[in-house]
Amino acid sequence: MRLIISREHLLKGLTVAGKAVGSKASFPILMNFKLTLDEKGLTVLGGNNELTISTLIPYMIEDKEIIRNTKHGSTLIGSKILTEIIRRIECDEVSITVVDDTIVKIEGGKSSFQLNSMKPEEYPEIDLEQTGVVFDIDSRELSKLVEQTSFAASAKEQRPILMAVNLSAVDGKLVATATDSARLARKEIDLEDEIEFSANVPAKTLLEITRMFESGGKVTTAVSDKKILFSFDSTLVSSRLINGEYPNTKNIIPKTFNYFLEVNSAQLVAAMERASLLSQERENVVKLTMTSSTLEVASRSAQIGSANETLSTFQFNGDILEISFNSDYVISAIKALKTEDVTIAFIGEMKPFVVKSDKDPSIVQLVTPVRTY
Amino acid sequence: MRLIISREHLLKGLTVAGKAVGSKASFPILMNFKLTLDEKGLTVLGGNNELTISTLIPYMIEDKEIIRNTKHGSTLIGSKILTEIIRRIECDEVSITVVDDTIVKIEGGKSSFQLNSMKPEEYPEIDLEQTGVVFDIDSRELSKLVEQTSFAASAKEQRPILMAVNLSAVDGKLVATATDSARLARKEIDLEDEIEFSANVPAKTLLEITRMFESGGKVTTAVSDKKILFSFDSTLVSSRLINGEYPNTKNIIPKTFNYFLEVNSAQLVAAMERASLLSQERENVVKLTMTSSTLEVASRSAQIGSANETLSTFQFNGDILEISFNSDYVISAIKALKTEDVTIAFIGEMKPFVVKSDKDPSIVQLVTPVRTY
Repeated sequence: MRLIISREHLLKGLTVAGKAVGSKASFPILMNFKLTLDEKGLTVLGGNNELTISTLIPYMIEDKEIIRNTKHGSTLIGSKILTEIIRRIECDEVSITVVDDTIVKIEGGKSSFQLNSMKPEEYPEIDLEQTGVVFDIDSRELSKLVEQTSFAASAKEQRPILMAVNLSAVDGKLVATATDSARLARKEIDLEDEIEFSANVPAKTLLEITRMFESGGKVTTAVSDKKILFSFDSTLVSSRLINGEYPNTKNIIPKTFNYFLEVNSAQLVAAMERASLLSQERENVVKLTMTSSTLEVASRSAQIGSANETLSTFQFNGDILEISFNSDYVISAIKALKTEDVTIAFIGEMKPFVVKSDKDPSIVQLVTPVRTY
Repeated sequence: MRLIISREHLLKGLTVAGKAVGSKASFPILMNFKLTLDEKGLTVLGGNNELTISTLIPYMIEDKEIIRNTKHGSTLIGSKILTEIIRRIECDEVSITVVDDTIVKIEGGKSSFQLNSMKPEEYPEIDLEQTGVVFDIDSRELSKLVEQTSFAASAKEQRPILMAVNLSAVDGKLVATATDSARLARKEIDLEDEIEFSANVPAKTLLEITRMFESGGKVTTAVSDKKILFSFDSTLVSSRLINGEYPNTKNIIPKTFNYFLEVNSAQLVAAMERASLLSQERENVVKLTMTSSTLEVASRSAQIGSANETLSTFQFNGDILEISFNSDYVISAIKALKTEDVTIAFIGEMKPFVVKSDKDPSIVQLVTPVRTY
């Protein structure tokens, strides 16, 4: 393999594929990039056990030559050292030459590097085929779907299935569900295609992937038994799926409520953030006390002291209600809604309650209260 | 104690004094601020085992009333919780009321907090008297003196004395010296007063202190056997000193040299930074090879590969010279000089060399080479 390539475009490719290369991979071979030059251009592939990213740098972009003086081939080079060199080297074009199976030469400006390399055959086989259910979706809509739900997935490894966002397609809708069993977030968007599937995608990985959709436009998504594959721009991103059946959460969200609180999102968040300063050792539990004329947020810690916040602009229909909960859950639910006001609908002080907004009926969030103190 | 105080000014005072309050103090009592209201204003005092900061918020600043409705007194409150509350509370003025020896009430806007507090007598006695040798110095000059030397102090606790910057005054000069025994930085500035002292100030603490000199102007410095005390604006900062005699480094810097390299600072730093990417596991060792017509920076790692950098603009008088060193040491020496070009003066390949600049003769830096590979 031999090529001269625009430093800027190479660095961009390395940065994209580098998002899949962790500092500690379980297999040392995964600390490398696989570089392949063929008739399409230079493909940079990086991966870890969960996520694989493959991005293509073409020979020409518009009328500009990006890659020249080439000989097809493939090699493995340490991802971190290659990225750092290309980031710091001072020149417009970089020359890459595979000297033999063990050495790659990188040259540019007044710098010259000989990097130890490995044979491309040593890299594991990666399936990046578009198999299974294939559909197109607007990248911004998909990003928002994931951002508004993935935070509710579990961070704990006891029940791996709860570390996933469940994506399911049915009846012309794509539904994302995430729950850590104490709270749940669900959002749906319309699909153009009549398709059906259900896939459990690791929540953190899915969020990382959707954050890569910079340029807007369509993403082609392919869901099979083993993987979910996203294609956009010149990049393919594949995540493994989590095996097992996602818990049935369809009927978990109550339909009728006894109390409704309507309140400004930012004001309630600020009051809960202040109050929870006093209960950081108690899972940020705060108590909301509502009557038709008063709204209070309170917290208490034997060690530190107590906090009391009042809000003046709100609407509450119903008698007095006192309910305690982890304020982090309600704060992230409100922030995910991204609306000026929110409605919190309650059944009673020990029943799960719903955080929602009339402005965006596509999303609903459920939070379980904690026993009051 | 009782007062109503401008939130903005209180927050500024807490932030200044908070720099001395660590997250893990060896004595839990030091996690508190000591607040004292007397005829001068509100004094906020925070400290750890090494550093104490006391800052005064006066009743009036120019024509504006900062503190009102007062009753003198003193209390201890948790520094972190108080700072977070004052940062987040939404109001222009905050009311602070000591209810009794165990409770302080903080109120503002629609928020109300009751914080557990302690009796002020439980806080250790802190000596903030201006004793010993007292002199005035320009705060910017002192900051620069410390910034240009403190990085060379040792980070290792084996020889505590080397974790200090030695400040000494003699013959109308203030001299700062720092060394970790493999490199040394020394700088001197003129003093107005004819004074004499020698003090070993913990380097990290000293750097933190000089970074607090925001507003320029004079700093009054008082050096005694036990502490160094800086007074500026409405703030007193005291650091403990490290006991023991600082190593005699007066005659360590050679006066005659056999080789001189003159080179652009930024170009040499960039070349060394790139080359050292290959020797991060070998203490960033690089080899400089100089002849009258070539200047090369090279490095090698059995695991990763090798790097070779050439520089074209430089002046070297002398025969060929090869010398290897920890590039971090030379990079930080060059960066501390802050000059466009540097001169590196060598005696021979196994002798310490000097990094300096004609533009700033007040500072000199010595680096010990390592054995070539």
